[in-house]
Amino acid sequence: MSDQTTTASAVGSAALLDLIRRHGLRTRAELIAATGLGRSTVGARLELLQEQGLIRDGSNATSTGGRPAARFEFNAEARVILAADVGASHARVAITDLDARPLAVRHSELDIALGPEKVIAWVCEKGLEMLAEVGRGHDQLAGVGIGLPGPVEHETGRPTSPPIMPGWHGADVPGLVAETFPVPVLVDNDVNIMALGEHATTWPQVQHLMFVKVATGIGSGIISDGALNRGAQGAAGDLGHIRVTSATDAVCRCGNTGCLEAIASGPAVAAQLRSSGLDVAGTEDVVARVRGGDAAAAAAVRQAGRDLGDVLAGCVSLLNPSVIVVGGLLAEAGETLLAGVREAVYARSLPLATQHLSIVHSTTGVDAAVIGAGVLVAQHVLSPQALDVAG
Amino acid sequence: MSDQTTTASAVGSAALLDLIRRHGLRTRAELIAATGLGRSTVGARLELLQEQGLIRDGSNATSTGGRPAARFEFNAEARVILAADVGASHARVAITDLDARPLAVRHSELDIALGPEKVIAWVCEKGLEMLAEVGRGHDQLAGVGIGLPGPVEHETGRPTSPPIMPGWHGADVPGLVAETFPVPVLVDNDVNIMALGEHATTWPQVQHLMFVKVATGIGSGIISDGALNRGAQGAAGDLGHIRVTSATDAVCRCGNTGCLEAIASGPAVAAQLRSSGLDVAGTEDVVARVRGGDAAAAAAVRQAGRDLGDVLAGCVSLLNPSVIVVGGLLAEAGETLLAGVREAVYARSLPLATQHLSIVHSTTGVDAAVIGAGVLVAQHVLSPQALDVAG
Repeated sequence: MSDQTTTASAVGSAALLDLIRRHGLRTRAELIAATGLGRSTVGARLELLQEQGLIRDGSNATSTGGRPAARFEFNAEARVILAADVGASHARVAITDLDARPLAVRHSELDIALGPEKVIAWVCEKGLEMLAEVGRGHDQLAGVGIGLPGPVEHETGRPTSPPIMPGWHGADVPGLVAETFPVPVLVDNDVNIMALGEHATTWPQVQHLMFVKVATGIGSGIISDGALNRGAQGAAGDLGHIRVTSATDAVCRCGNTGCLEAIASGPAVAAQLRSSGLDVAGTEDVVARVRGGDAAAAAAVRQAGRDLGDVLAGCVSLLNPSVIVVGGLLAEAGETLLAGVREAVYARSLPLATQHLSIVHSTTGVDAAVIGAGVLVAQHVLSPQALDVAG
Repeated sequence: MSDQTTTASAVGSAALLDLIRRHGLRTRAELIAATGLGRSTVGARLELLQEQGLIRDGSNATSTGGRPAARFEFNAEARVILAADVGASHARVAITDLDARPLAVRHSELDIALGPEKVIAWVCEKGLEMLAEVGRGHDQLAGVGIGLPGPVEHETGRPTSPPIMPGWHGADVPGLVAETFPVPVLVDNDVNIMALGEHATTWPQVQHLMFVKVATGIGSGIISDGALNRGAQGAAGDLGHIRVTSATDAVCRCGNTGCLEAIASGPAVAAQLRSSGLDVAGTEDVVARVRGGDAAAAAAVRQAGRDLGDVLAGCVSLLNPSVIVVGGLLAEAGETLLAGVREAVYARSLPLATQHLSIVHSTTGVDAAVIGAGVLVAQHVLSPQALDVAG
């Protein structure tokens, strides 16, 4: 019920912009009819949006007599976003427009154990270089979005006891960014932003989706009723430490035993293959062997898929999604992993929850996270909370 | 993003009513200022709400000169709701006002295996009697809300393969009700409406809550970001058939083995006690024995709590709720069940997800479901979709 109120008191610039941007309303008259706002109110709010460059008149200039009504359109290039995907051992940084389309992208090895000051300084340095590269000034930066490989408290943007990010617990990431860029800074778990990116790019009509990343860790981002479901402390989607039914006594880095991550992550599968005498250094080797037709590697990945599916069967019962998207490095082993997942999910879940369920590979690939970080920032800076404070 | 649009185009009667009902705005001037709507638009919409009796002028009649501005207030008694909670072997029927407060309640033994025609006819017959009892005519009935003990397709109100409701699969429950009451009919899973009732009554400020019912079956209703999360086919929250980690080979009525319901439901615990030679007929006996200090029964219920906690630990990792409310008949065994639940959840879940988590007993008691059915109908009939079609 509070939703209605928020919006009732905020049929301001943001709501008008959304009607223009997503629903094809173009003229002042259409906007007045759709909102019930007074003519002068609509006029003032449109003027504000034009001043900010967020809309422009897209009318055809050739008039056939009389003055044509202005036809507004969203100007996604009005501002840009700095979007960063920081992993355990790499970082990917992009400048995107307000539709989260990447205008420039950089990728680099980067050890997250360098700590928040050095990593964020590096991200900001790349941001400055790339802003120059695309010919944009600081004043055109709408916001910064950053994905991190661990739990993040959504309200403050601070990582909370992240297991693979030494030195990051409680770090004021938005504060560090603000030293270079005094703009809104949104920080979230990397899998949450991958879910946003995959949803916006490939499944915009789907209301209930899970994005699962299987790599060094295992995590998920949950879209419920069309929006990211972060839970009370931003920790929702943490699949990696759910106990697998057929659990061995494998000790997890979290201190418990039998966690999904200790059994079905890339490093766990690599360790299993090493223990049977194979020369497998890490997840990349596992993927290469499966692709090369190695039966032992394929069997191990298929079993990892079943173990993942065992946990996902519970998620399907609990959340009843339409689509489960599987991404992350181990998913690049191809159909082998997904075959195991499907086997377990369809064996364990009830018919009502699986009759319309698709279990598919990620299609956004390496840019999923930076696109998602762009979506996160765009949703924020174009929201009533951000746009209508000034209005 | 679509939320903003829905509301932008629907700042109609429903949004004004919500401002009056929940946010204490009282005068025409306050409503104009809060919404940005034109004076004539606000006037027309208020007039419509007054015609429908949903608002009334609550001004003090004693004037000190000059005409005082009208001060509007919500009139929860304008219409009534027929709310029914149909269980496996009982039904509870209430007439509530638009705030879901019960005005009259009936409870009766009723076997759901009688099938949809007979059960719905009985509900409607009680509804007619109780409408007369509270002195309301058919024209004052805003809608009918019904909770059923199985999965319900939310869009159509039809049960879908409900395991303990023989003869109900695909039944047109709204159509059967409409033969007596031609008003909106909302049908949902009983645990979903209990979650709505418990949330509205006891935890209105909490955004992420799970309501778990442990009785003949085990199920849950999920509140995410303040709203019921039904999933894609209305099947979300189905805990009963998730496999327990320490699963025995107990065969479940669903055909799988090791399901939570086959291990930790009331009948499952009763069967375990019978197999050790005790004379325990059903869940009521289990509860009575625990309350009477029977050590064997307490041990069995505590283990059921641990098994439930094993599954809930996964739910906590996935959903990161602030509150888990445990209700249903077996929960009446008191702290014993919850002690087992807490033991398992706090042993298995990560610190970030449990540091602010409360695991508590249901407080709404036997009326949780009828209150929830009332909330469900009130949310619908006071929504923009319902109110603003006419406006």
